[in-house]
Amino acid sequence: MLKLYRMLPSSSSSSSRNQLLQILSYRKLEVRDFSTSTNNYSAAKGYASDRIFAPYSVYKGKAAFSLSPCLPTFTKLDSGALVVDRRGSIMMSFMPAIGERKYDSDKKQRFALSATEVGSLIAMGPQDSCEFFHDPSMKSSNAGQVRKSLSIKPHSNGYFVSLNVVNTLLNTKDNFSVPVTTAEFAVMKTACSFALPHIMGWDRLTSPTNQQSSGKVSFQPKTNSHILDLEWEK
Amino acid sequence: MLKLYRMLPSSSSSSSRNQLLQILSYRKLEVRDFSTSTNNYSAAKGYASDRIFAPYSVYKGKAAFSLSPCLPTFTKLDSGALVVDRRGSIMMSFMPAIGERKYDSDKKQRFALSATEVGSLIAMGPQDSCEFFHDPSMKSSNAGQVRKSLSIKPHSNGYFVSLNVVNTLLNTKDNFSVPVTTAEFAVMKTACSFALPHIMGWDRLTSPTNQQSSGKVSFQPKTNSHILDLEWEK
Amino acid sequence: MLKLYRMLPSSSSSSSRNQLLQILSYRKLEVRDFSTSTNNYSAAKGYASDRIFAPYSVYKGKAAFSLSPCLPTFTKLDSGALVVDRRGSIMMSFMPAIGERKYDSDKKQRFALSATEVGSLIAMGPQDSCEFFHDPSMKSSNAGQVRKSLSIKPHSNGYFVSLNVVNTLLNTKDNFSVPVTTAEFAVMKTACSFALPHIMGWDRLTSPTNQQSSGKVSFQPKTNSHILDLEWEK
Amino acid sequence: MLKLYRMLPSSSSSSSRNQLLQILSYRKLEVRDFSTSTNNYSAAKGYASDRIFAPYSVYKGKAAFSLSPCLPTFTKLDSGALVVDRRGSIMMSFMPAIGERKYDSDKKQRFALSATEVGSLIAMGPQDSCEFFHDPSMKSSNAGQVRKSLSIKPHSNGYFVSLNVVNTLLNTKDNFSVPVTTAEFAVMKTACSFALPHIMGWDRLTSPTNQQSSGKVSFQPKTNSHILDLEWEK
Repeated sequence: MLKLYRMLPSSSSSSSRNQLLQILSYRKLEVRDFSTSTNNYSAAKGYASDRIFAPYSVYKGKAAFSLSPCLPTFTKLDSGALVVDRRGSIMMSFMPAIGERKYDSDKKQRFALSATEVGSLIAMGPQDSCEFFHDPSMKSSNAGQVRKSLSIKPHSNGYFVSLNVVNTLLNTKDNFSVPVTTAEFAVMKTACSFALPHIMGWDRLTSPTNQQSSGKVSFQPKTNSHILDLEWEK
Repeated sequence: MLKLYRMLPSSSSSSSRNQLLQILSYRKLEVRDFSTSTNNYSAAKGYASDRIFAPYSVYKGKAAFSLSPCLPTFTKLDSGALVVDRRGSIMMSFMPAIGERKYDSDKKQRFALSATEVGSLIAMGPQDSCEFFHDPSMKSSNAGQVRKSLSIKPHSNGYFVSLNVVNTLLNTKDNFSVPVTTAEFAVMKTACSFALPHIMGWDRLTSPTNQQSSGKVSFQPKTNSHILDLEWEK
Repeated sequence: MLKLYRMLPSSSSSSSRNQLLQILSYRKLEVRDFSTSTNNYSAAKGYASDRIFAPYSVYKGKAAFSLSPCLPTFTKLDSGALVVDRRGSIMMSFMPAIGERKYDSDKKQRFALSATEVGSLIAMGPQDSCEFFHDPSMKSSNAGQVRKSLSIKPHSNGYFVSLNVVNTLLNTKDNFSVPVTTAEFAVMKTACSFALPHIMGWDRLTSPTNQQSSGKVSFQPKTNSHILDLEWEK
Repeated sequence: MLKLYRMLPSSSSSSSRNQLLQILSYRKLEVRDFSTSTNNYSAAKGYASDRIFAPYSVYKGKAAFSLSPCLPTFTKLDSGALVVDRRGSIMMSFMPAIGERKYDSDKKQRFALSATEVGSLIAMGPQDSCEFFHDPSMKSSNAGQVRKSLSIKPHSNGYFVSLNVVNTLLNTKDNFSVPVTTAEFAVMKTACSFALPHIMGWDRLTSPTNQQSSGKVSFQPKTNSHILDLEWEK
């Protein structure tokens, strides 16, 4: 039987002012960090300035990670049509623990799951594992000098989600490993299944803005022939 | 084979005026109760005043419970970004039966399922069980004096959903146990899966409010490189 | 291997004007029928006058049925809150065949699946069956004189969906049995899973209309304690 | 264990201007193609002029295909009700490879999956296969002269998605076969499950536009009797 105890501060009412300030300071860093990115997005990449932050976070003893969907951006054609410009992703952010319930946002490492990688995650059965490899420098002369790998591997009561980053430029190696319960993984799967059509931009395809308002109505037999018509259009 | 008979008043057309008044009185209590909470939310916590009540209720012989999603609240930053302030949950409300089809709302007990607890519920297979423990006084000097546990355990044709509340301050013990059919549990799972992204605030991430409206269009090859760019942003 | 051939009129281009008129006539009847109900809803029960008709229909040799979601209605309280007034359902409409690709809408029989009955349907495995019993006269002196039962039973390559209506007042018995392929049942399950939160009214709970717009921001540690607060509210 | 390496240009920074122009030229063809169809839709069939293009594409060595939902169109009746006019579909577009990462959009072939065919796809287990047959000339004197078949067949690590088009008028045979990984198929299933209610038009049924705003409130016992009322309406 699965038992779930809430991981909560055992004595938050007696927490010293010092501890609280540390938390606030961490929080502020976090949000300032986000806020700055937001401005970058708005200016340089056309993101909304009114972004919303609702990450799903898993905090464990040695490290924490959070999941947050990044929507695609669209480009408007002269015809008025919108084409996906920058694809969406599920951004995973890892931070190492630097004390009890404190995590070092300066050592944050990111891994952006593509639609297909999200598909891989949501298709995982209880005994499955998967591993993804990214090279963020791929298009530059530094290709191959930073290698990231994310792995999800089963254990007795859930999965280990691990990120490994090797940076031969800075001569650093970062490793994060976060045990995830079956319940937490179910949240990840459900939330990622929900987000997948959105990071693909398919949610945009489904908000109709116009409709025929002509009074005359033709009752054509509802065969599938009109679908076949579409197949002749090139 | 599963057979489902509608549980309906066998003689509602012949129900005495007295019985009807009792039901109305109960209903009014219920709604007044809700209404008061609503005002509290509006004033103190920023909830919408136009709240909507559409609980999924399971009424059985000894007790009843209902499920209702509670949306998260957001805080607006100076940058215009929104951050989750108060997390959402699925609120479970239990009431004991005090007669045929009558339930005592004065003895209502609540249990708010967090996102991860909802993940636990929707991941349950037919033979799985789970149990959650809450201490609503955790942050006060009364910590440990009220203990709540919610358990979901399989039986022959569904599950038993039970809430146990031990209050050492009032020296009371409340126990509610509601048998749930496979069909009712399927509704719970489907509705909770639907609600999960909403109580996490992820539905907010997916309603785009702006789009590039510039006329010039750049056709960049649709590789995943832009996702990798994101991984460099800190 | 599953092979799917489109069931389409084999010679619609050579169809006689007579046949076409029959189809049109049937269509018009259908829509007039719908239209009338719509007006009833608008006037008496507060439904939208701009209703949308997009049934999922399964036409087979001896009978046809269609599925169409019916949304719940809400009542506005003085506080501004909305409470579910009339619950939603998935309406199943059966018609007997009266010729090749012609169905008799005058002999239509309806069966409205409740949320829990929908839960029963979407929880069905390949070998499961289920049966529901309704008595539309339950609250009148005619109780028991009309009995409806809907059954879904597995066969080699899908299910049989059957409606049985016994009317002892009119001394009639109607029986409809429609074979449904695995693919058609998958559409039914997916569409019903999508519709379930909507007929429960839970989609209304998730369209936020207000948000805190105050400039001041409090960074409180994101524990689950605010969920526990909710559990104290009665 | 499943390992996923990003299929990315290994040397996009060193790609010759020539290669880039080829890609741009292909892209422009693609979009012009789309744009033209869009105008056709707007004028002749009532589609939105502001269409959105967010196909899910699987590019492999010998061929590529993409999936894109096509929404249904509606016809407005005098009563104000909307009826589905032209059904929606998931359009599959195949192109043969004509070089490394280059595909010939002049040889594009389309196959429009109906709701039931989508149901077939999303119901597929790991060892299942399915095959669909279309004749786009079915209603003309050319019936039978063009035959299309789409098959999805399992292989060791995913599926083969193949389109076969035999055109006896032009005396051509086109064959496309694209290996699809388990992860890519999971994306297809999740995206198609999301899109299914939308191509059926059921998403329209769930955006309520009106609500009772009368002040008086009647508290009727929430039985299922109102659903049974619906069953009497013809």
